[in-house]
Amino acid sequence: MAKSAAPLRVIEETPAYWRVVFDYPPFNILDAAIFEGLQDLLVRMDTSESLRVVVFESAIPDFYLAHFDLTGKTGNITTAVGRSGLPILIDTFVRLTKSPAISIAKIRGCVRGGSSEFVLAWGVHPGGGGTERLPHLVGRGRALEIVLGANDFDGDTAERYGYVNRALPDAELDDFIDALARRIASFDRRAVVAAKNLVNQVSLPSADRLLDALNSFQTALTWPEAQQRIQALLERGLQREVDFEKSWPALLGTLLDT
Amino acid sequence: MAKSAAPLRVIEETPAYWRVVFDYPPFNILDAAIFEGLQDLLVRMDTSESLRVVVFESAIPDFYLAHFDLTGKTGNITTAVGRSGLPILIDTFVRLTKSPAISIAKIRGCVRGGSSEFVLAWGVHPGGGGTERLPHLVGRGRALEIVLGANDFDGDTAERYGYVNRALPDAELDDFIDALARRIASFDRRAVVAAKNLVNQVSLPSADRLLDALNSFQTALTWPEAQQRIQALLERGLQREVDFEKSWPALLGTLLDT
Amino acid sequence: MAKSAAPLRVIEETPAYWRVVFDYPPFNILDAAIFEGLQDLLVRMDTSESLRVVVFESAIPDFYLAHFDLTGKTGNITTAVGRSGLPILIDTFVRLTKSPAISIAKIRGCVRGGSSEFVLAWGVHPGGGGTERLPHLVGRGRALEIVLGANDFDGDTAERYGYVNRALPDAELDDFIDALARRIASFDRRAVVAAKNLVNQVSLPSADRLLDALNSFQTALTWPEAQQRIQALLERGLQREVDFEKSWPALLGTLLDT
Repeated sequence: MAKSAAPLRVIEETPAYWRVVFDYPPFNILDAAIFEGLQDLLVRMDTSESLRVVVFESAIPDFYLAHFDLTGKTGNITTAVGRSGLPILIDTFVRLTKSPAISIAKIRGCVRGGSSEFVLAWGVHPGGGGTERLPHLVGRGRALEIVLGANDFDGDTAERYGYVNRALPDAELDDFIDALARRIASFDRRAVVAAKNLVNQVSLPSADRLLDALNSFQTALTWPEAQQRIQALLERGLQREVDFEKSWPALLGTLLDT
Repeated sequence: MAKSAAPLRVIEETPAYWRVVFDYPPFNILDAAIFEGLQDLLVRMDTSESLRVVVFESAIPDFYLAHFDLTGKTGNITTAVGRSGLPILIDTFVRLTKSPAISIAKIRGCVRGGSSEFVLAWGVHPGGGGTERLPHLVGRGRALEIVLGANDFDGDTAERYGYVNRALPDAELDDFIDALARRIASFDRRAVVAAKNLVNQVSLPSADRLLDALNSFQTALTWPEAQQRIQALLERGLQREVDFEKSWPALLGTLLDT
Repeated sequence: MAKSAAPLRVIEETPAYWRVVFDYPPFNILDAAIFEGLQDLLVRMDTSESLRVVVFESAIPDFYLAHFDLTGKTGNITTAVGRSGLPILIDTFVRLTKSPAISIAKIRGCVRGGSSEFVLAWGVHPGGGGTERLPHLVGRGRALEIVLGANDFDGDTAERYGYVNRALPDAELDDFIDALARRIASFDRRAVVAAKNLVNQVSLPSADRLLDALNSFQTALTWPEAQQRIQALLERGLQREVDFEKSWPALLGTLLDT
């Protein structure tokens, strides 16, 4: 069953509506395997002529997506380039935002770092596009609080900030997302594509800005302070212990003093 | 009484504060007559040296503004150019946003399509500026949900999304708008004009982006799928039946399956 | 005690976390002395190699920051240039936004005019950057309402609009800000600086736009209508009487009729 060992699986609800389930125990940590899975998914998405909408969800209770891997398993995602000519890390996000298909994140549980918000805890700064996308989404003041505070946001606050579209009661989440996805899937494909393209024209950061952030992030990773912080977090239980993985952002202010 | 047959009438509360009432039964559908009325209004606004603020409201219960006409009554609004050198459809919106006078929309009842949100239902994509203006107003994620979901938003959700400034209890709406309009009308005209111009400098989409969207929309209208969807909607009661006109966006997901 | 007479004082909670307290009775009015204090602060900030975060607060009950001085005490803040090459008024705000240190405003009481929102009451338009920053923060529609309505916003509405990050119950404000400030102060300085710089790259208005607004504002101050309004407000009690200073925006709609 090589299939079930993949970090993400694709469920084709209909030819127009797919669900992608991250199932990469223990925490859906972002490493080279996840990015490889996403790159494969992008190829499949690019070659489908019926697809309109992809819902991303998690099979792991309490965790949606974790942070980037800190144990050397990120492979060449920041150096090898993808189809867009950008490094895999950026290429993956850029191709998702520019894909003819619409992405919907159905978030249950913790989500961190993939959106670059928590990396100050590591002694580095965001490099995957967060600093470029957040100010347009939530305004400069809230973007700075999110990035520099490096803390968890509950769903209601995230909605008030404009960080997510909506926070819904858990019992309503599945039905809301399924109805929205089926609705979009019912529309004509080229109309959906044209509408998304028009929105993209006025809302996506430039490749130059994204590359600047990634290059600066690569440099930051070499700082000794960053290496010290990352080691301290790993020793405390990061990437190993469920309780620590759930709560570490709240502990950060004092975690590294001792 | 040619006057009462006009699709909109202007009430000069004071020389500085006008109300424009859309009164075009049955649903204030946007056709060539409405645009002609708006073009006449713009000429009157341009020549007034006392005007500061215009409140737009509807005389039709349950409907503020409907979608664009689908029965061939839109005349030459996408081909003939207005004073700005842009096609009438865009010219009308652009000149309102750049007018020395401030526009306030006092929305009671359904509002659709004129802001381009629902056109996926027709098999086309927005062409009147919605995809260019929404991302700056509500952020990319919410703009995509609004445009691609093509559904009604209640007032509270619209406020949370930043789609409208405020949702107010019905009993407070008239007084709130009237007080705000009279307040703006009490300020010096050239200060109001200068302030609006400064905001416009950093917040309006370019004419090129608006034209791209309109051209793409024109092409989309020729797609056979679009023509099929539009016919299906008209046969079901669009532009004729009150109940259908009120509820059709909620029905869309399944409407066209049968 | 020349120190206690300064309009603002700096409290170094830690080398990384400073508090700046505006204490300039009766209302923390923005005049040349406040800007001189801020310019001195900026020099201190620029030369500190440990500073990460500065919290700005007020020692005056009911007033956080008032409007610009209208009694001739603004000195040369709009003509003399600061270190950025921009006039002191803009230089002060621009250097704060670009400083390696993070600014947090802990707002209790009225705040006006320093963000340029109320100047229509004076017959002029904003000139200190408000019209350039607000549309990106709250969207065009809400920016226009804030600037053109020239009225007070309570904290909850300000949060809903995205005008402030959060409105908190008074009893929680101090602890929330202190915890956030200490958290940011605990991170590595160059990571904080790099993150803020990346956010700034995509969220700050250009110097050209800021200068246009200031030049236009300078012209507006020479309009006779503006001078008349300013005189009327001063005669009614502006800058002298506490009750008037607290409530004048609410009275504006009718204040100048008589």
